[in-house]
Amino acid sequence: MKFQIQRDKLVDGVNDVIKAVSSRTAIPILSGIKITAHDEGITLTGSDSDISIESFIPKEEDGKEIVNVEQTGGIVLQAKFFESIVKKLPLDTVEIEVHSHLQTVIRSGKSEFNLNGQDVNEYPRLPEIEEDSVLKIPTNLLKTMIRQTVFAVSASETRPILTGVNWTVEDGMLNCVATDSHRLAMRKAPINGGNGEPYKAVIPGKSLNELNKILDDTADETEIVMTENQVLFRAKHVLFFSRLLEGNYPDTSRLVPSESKTEMTIGGKDFLQAIDRASLLAREERNNVVKLHISEQGGVQISSNTPEIGKVVEEVQSDATTGEELTISFSAKYMMDALKVLEGAETNIQFTGAMRPFVLRPTGDDSILQLITPVRTY
Amino acid sequence: MKFQIQRDKLVDGVNDVIKAVSSRTAIPILSGIKITAHDEGITLTGSDSDISIESFIPKEEDGKEIVNVEQTGGIVLQAKFFESIVKKLPLDTVEIEVHSHLQTVIRSGKSEFNLNGQDVNEYPRLPEIEEDSVLKIPTNLLKTMIRQTVFAVSASETRPILTGVNWTVEDGMLNCVATDSHRLAMRKAPINGGNGEPYKAVIPGKSLNELNKILDDTADETEIVMTENQVLFRAKHVLFFSRLLEGNYPDTSRLVPSESKTEMTIGGKDFLQAIDRASLLAREERNNVVKLHISEQGGVQISSNTPEIGKVVEEVQSDATTGEELTISFSAKYMMDALKVLEGAETNIQFTGAMRPFVLRPTGDDSILQLITPVRTY
Repeated sequence: MKFQIQRDKLVDGVNDVIKAVSSRTAIPILSGIKITAHDEGITLTGSDSDISIESFIPKEEDGKEIVNVEQTGGIVLQAKFFESIVKKLPLDTVEIEVHSHLQTVIRSGKSEFNLNGQDVNEYPRLPEIEEDSVLKIPTNLLKTMIRQTVFAVSASETRPILTGVNWTVEDGMLNCVATDSHRLAMRKAPINGGNGEPYKAVIPGKSLNELNKILDDTADETEIVMTENQVLFRAKHVLFFSRLLEGNYPDTSRLVPSESKTEMTIGGKDFLQAIDRASLLAREERNNVVKLHISEQGGVQISSNTPEIGKVVEEVQSDATTGEELTISFSAKYMMDALKVLEGAETNIQFTGAMRPFVLRPTGDDSILQLITPVRTY
Repeated sequence: MKFQIQRDKLVDGVNDVIKAVSSRTAIPILSGIKITAHDEGITLTGSDSDISIESFIPKEEDGKEIVNVEQTGGIVLQAKFFESIVKKLPLDTVEIEVHSHLQTVIRSGKSEFNLNGQDVNEYPRLPEIEEDSVLKIPTNLLKTMIRQTVFAVSASETRPILTGVNWTVEDGMLNCVATDSHRLAMRKAPINGGNGEPYKAVIPGKSLNELNKILDDTADETEIVMTENQVLFRAKHVLFFSRLLEGNYPDTSRLVPSESKTEMTIGGKDFLQAIDRASLLAREERNNVVKLHISEQGGVQISSNTPEIGKVVEEVQSDATTGEELTISFSAKYMMDALKVLEGAETNIQFTGAMRPFVLRPTGDDSILQLITPVRTY
C-alpha cells in the first residue's frame, strides 16, 4: 500500500472513525484504525464491535485531487498514535507506505514516522446489511430528533432495554421514545422511503450520541437501513453501524395522561432560568428538588428550601393558567433537561394532581412531548 | 448592611476573590466571601490563609453610579453559592440586605434568595503590611515574568523551598528564578521604586499562578510591597496577599555553564513542533525522552524509538551550528516548556557535552535563560 493524501481530509476522516474506537477493548486489533487504499480512494474504519464507523475519502472532490494511490492495499495502525501524528505533521500532504513486516512509514516534509502495523486481514468484518428498503430523513431533522430524546435514556444497566431509544416507523412517521422510568421524551416526524412495512428498533443511546457528533448539520438526507440486529446510517462519505438492543421495549403509550386538572402556558426560556436559580441551593442534596405552586389567581411560584444553607423564591410570569390550584415538587434537573430541548419555545404544561406525571409540549405542536414524574415530599 | 449594585461589577469582583477560596479549608469561615459595605463602596475578600485577595468596587466609576450603599456593615456568605447566585440573577442590578440573625436577602427582579450568613467579625484579618517602600512594575511585564519562570517550580514537596520562585531585587533589577533541580528558568527585568536596599523573597508558585490569572494584561503598573513573610501586589481595585516560603533558596548562579562545546541557533517555533512530534510515540513511557543529534556538517536530527510502537526521525533546519558533533537525550516535556516561554523566537542553545546541562536563550537577549539537565541513556 502506498498513497499521498491531503492532510486535512485525512484528519477529518480520522476524527470521524476514531469516535468508534475504544481504548479499553477486549479485541486488541480494534484499538487500531483500518486503512485501505483502493481504486476509488481511501477508506478508514473504526469499531468497538457495538459501533462501527467507515469514512471514505475519494480520489477527487470538486475537480481537485485529494488522494493519489500508488499501490492499493491495507493496514491497521494504532488509533491513538495515528490520530496525534496526522494532526501534528508539518506539511499539507502526507505519504503513507507499508513496507515488509507491516512496517508503515508516514512521511510529511522532513518528518518521518515508522509505525508497527497490524494485518488488515485480521480486522473484523463490518456487519453485512441487506438493503432491501432504505429510509431517508433530512440530516438536521435527524440530529434534532436524537437530541430531543436521547438525554432521557436510563443511565443504569438494571433494565438494559431502557438505555436505548425506541424507534418505530409506521405510516411514514418515525417515532422516537426514551424513558428512564422517571421521565419520558417523545419526538415524531415524517420519514421518507421504506417499503410500507412497519419497523421497530431499540438503538443504544451511546450510539445515537456518537452518530449525532459525526453528522453534519445539513438538510441533505441521511439514509437509514434497519435489520433484525443492526442499523446502518449513511451520510455523505460516512457509514455508521450500530448493533440494536435485544428485548421488548415497554409500552409507553398509556403513560401519558389523557386529561388534565391544572394547565399552564409559560415562556420556556424564563421558566428554565427560574428553575435553574431555584435549584441552586438544592444541588448539594442528592435529590435536587424544587417546588412549583400555581395559585387560584394564576400566580406561579418556584421555591426551594435547604435549611442549613438558605431558601429561594422565584415569581414567574405565566402566559395563562387554568384549572385547580396546585403544589407539586419535581427534579429540577429533569425539568431543565426537558425545557432545554424545547429550545425556549412557549410551553404548555398539563398537570393531573401533585402525585401524577405531568406533560410538557410546545404550544400548538404535538410532534414533541416531555413527561416528568413528580417527587413525593412530606 | 444594605446596598444595590451593578451585577456585572459584582460578578467581576467575586470572580477575582473566589480564586483564593478553597473548598477544603480547615477554617470553616474561609469557605465564605467577606462582603463589607462602607462609605466608599463595597469590598469583597477571599482567603485560604496562604493567599488573600481583596477586591474593591467603588460607588462611582467614570461618572456612573455602580453601588448605592443604604446602610454600611458586613457579612460572610458561602462562596460557592454566592458566586452561582450572582452569576444567574435575572436583572442587571442586585440588592443585598442583612436582616436579623445574619439572614441575608439577595434580590433581583422577582428572584429572592435568603442565605444564612456568618458574622463578619469572625473572619480573619488580612496581614498588616508596612509600606515603607513600594516597588513598581508594568503589569504586562510582571505577567510575562511569572509565566516564563513559574512552570519550572518543583511539583514535589520533598524540598518545599523549590515549590516557590526566588525573587531578588538589587540595583533596580528584579531577578526571578525557578528550578525543580532538573531544569531551571530565569528571567530578569528593570523594576522601579524601592528604597535602594536589596530584597529577597521566595513566592509560592501557586500564588504566582493565581496572581497571573487576576491581573489584567495592561501596561499600568502593579505595586509590590515585600516584607519578612508576606508579599502584597496592588493593582487597580485589587489587593493580592501571599505568604512567602521560609528557608534559604539554593544558590543557582553556579549551575549555568560559562562555556560551551557545541552551539546551535534555531527557529523556536519549528523546533518546538519537531520536538512535539518526535515525542509522540514516547509519551506512554514514563520518561518521554527524545534524542538530539548535531552532526559535524551541521545537520540537526531529533528522534525517538519505542520498539513496541515504532520510531520517528525529524530533520530540523538550524540557522547555524558550531563546535563538536553531539548526541544528547533529554525530556521532551522540559524542552517544550522552555521553548514555549521563548514564544517562537530564534533561540540559541549552548551544550557542554552529552552529560552536562545545556542552556537556551533567545538570540541576542540575556534577560531570559532556560537550563535543562540531559537524561542519561544506555
